[in-house]
Amino acid sequence: MDELELDFQLDPQLAVDSVHVGDFPLSRVLLMNDSNYPWFILVPRRAGVTEIYHLGEKDRHQLMRESSALAENLADIFAARKMNVANLGNMVAQLHVHVIVRKESDAAWPGPVWGKAPAKPYSDDELKRIESRLDTLLEGELAFTPA
Amino acid sequence: MDELELDFQLDPQLAVDSVHVGDFPLSRVLLMNDSNYPWFILVPRRAGVTEIYHLGEKDRHQLMRESSALAENLADIFAARKMNVANLGNMVAQLHVHVIVRKESDAAWPGPVWGKAPAKPYSDDELKRIESRLDTLLEGELAFTPA
Repeated sequence: MDELELDFQLDPQLAVDSVHVGDFPLSRVLLMNDSNYPWFILVPRRAGVTEIYHLGEKDRHQLMRESSALAENLADIFAARKMNVANLGNMVAQLHVHVIVRKESDAAWPGPVWGKAPAKPYSDDELKRIESRLDTLLEGELAFTPA
Repeated sequence: MDELELDFQLDPQLAVDSVHVGDFPLSRVLLMNDSNYPWFILVPRRAGVTEIYHLGEKDRHQLMRESSALAENLADIFAARKMNVANLGNMVAQLHVHVIVRKESDAAWPGPVWGKAPAKPYSDDELKRIESRLDTLLEGELAFTPA
């Protein structure tokens, strides 16, 4: 195991705001606990990394594979009008990539989602339903492991 | 030349809002005409593409190379606090990736830049200064060709 992976710990703010739904070979997959949008976050399990260009070349390309596979699957599952894929990190330094399903009917369309509508936490039932849809579609692809 | 490249035409809205500063092997490099932030946009020269996952695997990895090289260089040139790298595209459908230098002193920090401050166009002198700094730093790397 990569030394940077051994030292990896999820940022406490990300942990509070989200649910851990699984892992790709490189990244932890989080679901933001905000039912306004199907809003996922990929966090490469590498300690001390804040920019994509801090990753080694192999990890960068793996991140591209994981974010593309996740975006394509989510667009399909949730009938997206557009996927938003973004690394901002102005508030939480730990490198994380937002992968967000956007629809014309959502709370922020056509603007970006950040700082727009207050988060609406999922019910337990809604969470279970989302997780089961992910497992079916991502299992096998890129070795996604449900949490 | 790739057939999708032959048919490529820059989206008219992107053309109006920005200055063409050069090209990487895959992407056109635009500078948003907004001096609030050093704000660049990469547009893969592929017709009809709206999502990163629409690109072929080779193009995806080239886009990762180009966005990482641009972000790393810009962070250096402009002393960034954080780079924001994002494909949103809710308003302009043509696939484009924002690569934005963020500083704690900028007009939107720590929020995202979109829809925040009205654009402040550059003077001709400011534009020339930025372009000359880019040429020096990016020439040779990834075959960046100044416009």
